[in-house]
Amino acid sequence: MIDFDFISPTKIYFGTNKEELVGQICNEHGYKRVYIVIGQGSVKRSGLLDTVLDSLNANDIKYQILEGVRPNPTIDLCRKGIEEARVFAPNLILAIGGGSVIDTAKNIAVGYFYVGDSFDFNLHKVKPKKALPIGVILTIAASGSELSTSCVIQDDETQIKQGFNDDIVRPVFAIENPKLTYSVSKVQTAYGVVDIMMHTLERYFNASSDNEPADGFAEALLRSVIKAGKTVMNNPTDYDARAVLMLMSSLSHNGMTSIGKNGGFFVHPIEHAVSGVYTNVAHAAGLAVIFPAWAKYYINYDVDKFDSLARNVFDLHNKNKIDNAKAGINEIEKLFAILGMPKTFKDLGIDNPDIDKLVNIITNNGERVIKHPKKDMDKEVLTTILKSCL
Amino acid sequence: MIDFDFISPTKIYFGTNKEELVGQICNEHGYKRVYIVIGQGSVKRSGLLDTVLDSLNANDIKYQILEGVRPNPTIDLCRKGIEEARVFAPNLILAIGGGSVIDTAKNIAVGYFYVGDSFDFNLHKVKPKKALPIGVILTIAASGSELSTSCVIQDDETQIKQGFNDDIVRPVFAIENPKLTYSVSKVQTAYGVVDIMMHTLERYFNASSDNEPADGFAEALLRSVIKAGKTVMNNPTDYDARAVLMLMSSLSHNGMTSIGKNGGFFVHPIEHAVSGVYTNVAHAAGLAVIFPAWAKYYINYDVDKFDSLARNVFDLHNKNKIDNAKAGINEIEKLFAILGMPKTFKDLGIDNPDIDKLVNIITNNGERVIKHPKKDMDKEVLTTILKSCL
Repeated sequence: MIDFDFISPTKIYFGTNKEELVGQICNEHGYKRVYIVIGQGSVKRSGLLDTVLDSLNANDIKYQILEGVRPNPTIDLCRKGIEEARVFAPNLILAIGGGSVIDTAKNIAVGYFYVGDSFDFNLHKVKPKKALPIGVILTIAASGSELSTSCVIQDDETQIKQGFNDDIVRPVFAIENPKLTYSVSKVQTAYGVVDIMMHTLERYFNASSDNEPADGFAEALLRSVIKAGKTVMNNPTDYDARAVLMLMSSLSHNGMTSIGKNGGFFVHPIEHAVSGVYTNVAHAAGLAVIFPAWAKYYINYDVDKFDSLARNVFDLHNKNKIDNAKAGINEIEKLFAILGMPKTFKDLGIDNPDIDKLVNIITNNGERVIKHPKKDMDKEVLTTILKSCL
Repeated sequence: MIDFDFISPTKIYFGTNKEELVGQICNEHGYKRVYIVIGQGSVKRSGLLDTVLDSLNANDIKYQILEGVRPNPTIDLCRKGIEEARVFAPNLILAIGGGSVIDTAKNIAVGYFYVGDSFDFNLHKVKPKKALPIGVILTIAASGSELSTSCVIQDDETQIKQGFNDDIVRPVFAIENPKLTYSVSKVQTAYGVVDIMMHTLERYFNASSDNEPADGFAEALLRSVIKAGKTVMNNPTDYDARAVLMLMSSLSHNGMTSIGKNGGFFVHPIEHAVSGVYTNVAHAAGLAVIFPAWAKYYINYDVDKFDSLARNVFDLHNKNKIDNAKAGINEIEKLFAILGMPKTFKDLGIDNPDIDKLVNIITNNGERVIKHPKKDMDKEVLTTILKSCL
């Protein structure tokens, strides 16, 4: 077990109709001016926004709304939000939505107190020192941003999509009503399952000691999410399955499944480059293409861990370790097929990906590698993996 | 999955020598006056207290010390602490020790703002509304109080030992250096392993839905703790094993292993009565005697869950479910034997326990039962279980 500091302070309000309590929750915290961030209108159409505004009004809380966050959210809208918020002077940023909305709220929360351009945080030019508190009403189980340190934003101009991680942007509360996700489309639900799994698998494939409880938590989470994911593909209003996905979304990315071990990511940085350049690519679709390619490369360097995954998540017990490890990856590919995920760049709608460009973005023109305990990911490794996605 | 609210806001500082940072941590939080609570002198003899005071002095933090907390901590010392603290006016209560010290600190933290007697909280006469922040430097992996809502205090006069649970007493930080536990005696280490297991098992045997991730977390935690517990019995300075026990102590009792399901306890209330009346009984020793008796009674009402425990924690796969379930309980008994735990009241030094008195304390003279999803624990059930501990 490594040395670490850990905090996951977000209060979760979980269950049916919990969003109706938002005004009361804000009141308890003393948040009387709330800057609301939403996406492209679905929370208006569903009536959720009205429910939230009713609750805020009933508690005499002032608000202003920023609308229009798109998937792969842009720094442009964050900049607009920061300017507006500085005029409105809120004491809470309230994100109603999923990862893109929450990450926009996070960027605004830190940009609010910063004199420079708030993409500086994402470019790791500067560490945030102060943030407005962030609250979340979650509408999709996927990104885990509702409890995480992560804030991923896209700059359309430079085609750079990059995240920063800091405890300062962990939300103070997250309201999670699984029924709000009943209406999430099949494809978006499937993306969510992949995203939750990937947040867990990325952590899992970091080095562990012999008896690492975090790996056991990760395996348990994966088993539950895989089962719930299959259930909701057939029955989108299965409460327990939706509830498992929603809560595991949060616990897949708050650091619990890497507590006491390193938590660095290997596949996400590749995908961020892909969906940064090819902006029509959904984050999870990109992950679903890259992970199996990544796994087939790294199986040779980390067969024990792939074998553990096969045993403890998929209950596979082939005597030959490498066969078992391969069978585990095969199970993930079968699951991704059930979830309707793409398998290749072509499936993603990219006929001729510019692999050199992607590799240069990921490695900052060869200046950095992605650290891996068994074999660092340099230009050569990344090129091989990306070519196997063709 | 049930509706719930959950928060575990404690920041964990984990690793070698992290206690040296306490002054800096207090400074970051703005805690400039610290009321320190310690036990019966071991932190003086080990030099830990000096390390802490050096760190506080170096950061210009004023302090006062309350010494003398004993196992099964008394309300008398809490009352003394509250009086002293009101004169000293701290902005943090710092517990250096294990569960008894932390629980004393918690009672002082809420009693500080309360006009009545602070045992009222433990008697559930009143809910705490305000508390001083609590910090912890942990010296033994056992109670989990460093992250929990729980505060168990003993009134010697009435022989009542009772806990209250409230988010308000969750510590703001917990400093956990596994090396501080190297010197914990074999018997105290073993008690800790039992306590951590019991916090997890109590939650596990609550009702679950078909795909409850919390149960998977509990099983993973139990596997790691059992393995680490066996290791430290032979090698008390195995860092990884001590680290697993320390971190799992915290995660066994912060609510993570019951997130999304009920977390009520069945065995602890029985043990609290036993060690309340027979004050020489160590909490974990009492639990080790009562749990197998409780399990052998409840196996008939909850065979599926006992079977799951046997399969997923002890890797037992008897075809006959009841046989498998029994084999699982047998594994726990074998483990408790390895840990040197007592098996009967006689082993606890109680030749003729007053079972009627114990049952009356637990049930408040028959006025209440302990709720269990399959069969509530009333006077009759409790009497049967306690008699089987003879």
